[in-house]
Amino acid sequence: MSANKLFGHVPGYLPGSKFRTREELFRAGVHRHTQAGISGNKEEGADSIVLSGGYEDDDDYGSTIIYTGEGGNDRSLRRQIDHQELVRGNRALVVSKLRGLPIRVIRGASHRGEFSPREGYRYDGLYRVADFWLDKGINDFLIWRFHLEAIEGETFLQREGLLFSEEPLAYDAVPRHFQVVNRIVRDSAITQRVKVLYKHRCQVCGTALQTPIGLYAEAAHIQPLGAPHNGPDVLSNILCLCANHHVLFDWLAFTIDDNFALIGMDGFLVKHSEHHIDVQHLQFHRGLYRALNSPAL
Amino acid sequence: MSANKLFGHVPGYLPGSKFRTREELFRAGVHRHTQAGISGNKEEGADSIVLSGGYEDDDDYGSTIIYTGEGGNDRSLRRQIDHQELVRGNRALVVSKLRGLPIRVIRGASHRGEFSPREGYRYDGLYRVADFWLDKGINDFLIWRFHLEAIEGETFLQREGLLFSEEPLAYDAVPRHFQVVNRIVRDSAITQRVKVLYKHRCQVCGTALQTPIGLYAEAAHIQPLGAPHNGPDVLSNILCLCANHHVLFDWLAFTIDDNFALIGMDGFLVKHSEHHIDVQHLQFHRGLYRALNSPAL
Repeated sequence: MSANKLFGHVPGYLPGSKFRTREELFRAGVHRHTQAGISGNKEEGADSIVLSGGYEDDDDYGSTIIYTGEGGNDRSLRRQIDHQELVRGNRALVVSKLRGLPIRVIRGASHRGEFSPREGYRYDGLYRVADFWLDKGINDFLIWRFHLEAIEGETFLQREGLLFSEEPLAYDAVPRHFQVVNRIVRDSAITQRVKVLYKHRCQVCGTALQTPIGLYAEAAHIQPLGAPHNGPDVLSNILCLCANHHVLFDWLAFTIDDNFALIGMDGFLVKHSEHHIDVQHLQFHRGLYRALNSPAL
Repeated sequence: MSANKLFGHVPGYLPGSKFRTREELFRAGVHRHTQAGISGNKEEGADSIVLSGGYEDDDDYGSTIIYTGEGGNDRSLRRQIDHQELVRGNRALVVSKLRGLPIRVIRGASHRGEFSPREGYRYDGLYRVADFWLDKGINDFLIWRFHLEAIEGETFLQREGLLFSEEPLAYDAVPRHFQVVNRIVRDSAITQRVKVLYKHRCQVCGTALQTPIGLYAEAAHIQPLGAPHNGPDVLSNILCLCANHHVLFDWLAFTIDDNFALIGMDGFLVKHSEHHIDVQHLQFHRGLYRALNSPAL
């Protein structure tokens, strides 16, 4: 296991990249384990999984994967011999859901599904954990199951229209989308950074929502992303808020002055010394606030 | 304007239904106004809009519509002569976003876009308000703009693969999806009902999130919807929660006993006498809670 895991695509390895062995996958940094199916830990979450047919209860529908957690499995018999617990890789996958992290999915030939490569391993792109639950497996042992959903536009199968292709990808045939920036990686990193900086405490009320898996907070953009607002996805445009204050901020129940005094609410925004907030973004938000709160414009 | 608006498809009028006149649209109940482009009010939200080319600033991309609000427009000149305010129909559209309500979109021939019918009016299905903002229109007057996004699978254009068809739909050619239940209508109604019952106050902490447009609350399913949980979308399986307690409930930081005592948190769930909660759903949620909170199963 490595500290400071890389979440998202590994530079140089596009979805569709082929690897002959687990060793090759490991050296490329695409799956940082030579044995376990899940790479991850309970602090950072899971960065990648390999579908290799070790668990009889996996279901692979392409964009949707019902993935069986690890543990209780006899490698030689290839079947469950005990219950699974919510520890190690299983817990890491739950943390990935809590933190909204993307997971690299690698399919191995031994997985034997219609989406598997004929030989070796193929990196198939990014999925997110949509759900998880405790289930009874085929042999009545309790297993943890994970519903993984392809992140739109970030998987090999989607690019191929869910058709299977054995052709390796030529780099000059790569869609612009993949060439630009490793957006998913960057987004996750910025989002995590603001949350860690504030220890998941809301910058308005100080609340950190405590779940059984860890603390929960939301990253809120000051100047909204996307047209027509076109706010940038950078730390100076992001706040760490609880879910309630995120709703109130997005709905313009309050806004923030250049000196970080709250407007429409008492108090001041808590600001960490390492967190530079761009006042231009605050000005933009105040413009949205005035437009919605002035009775006649 | 009618009280108790119907949100979602109007029974008997599938997406693709044609109408010769505004009068016909009105009598069908598809658009309950004979003149205004927006049907709605600031209490209930907007139930339908007509794209008829009255505003020069509309942009129609099919699944995405940038819709210009009402007011400040000279009907005879067909151009803006004054600023628009966030009142009447404009405010109703913002309320629809706050409440998550679907909006019926009708395109008229006079709209003259590539997605318009050649004559009369066509009901094109359900959209949601994704965003809204104050903008400078073509003549420098301030206008309210609304980003409407097609609800997946609920519009005529999507069903036709965005190809334009002048053929009226035969009822026996209707996909099963539309025949089953008016799901979108029902969902909105149940969701609204639980929120109104509790006056948008959280059943755990009593908070009602106050926005400039109205109160905000979330409808939380006790036994989750969808596979593998398969909870029903009925009032006895829904709570009215603030965003923070919705996060904590879904993340199993707390659960609820059959006598409505909270588990994992002090206090009792507030329960309205008209709100029957099915204890089977509570039992299901407690099962999820135990699975996540027990260190070894």
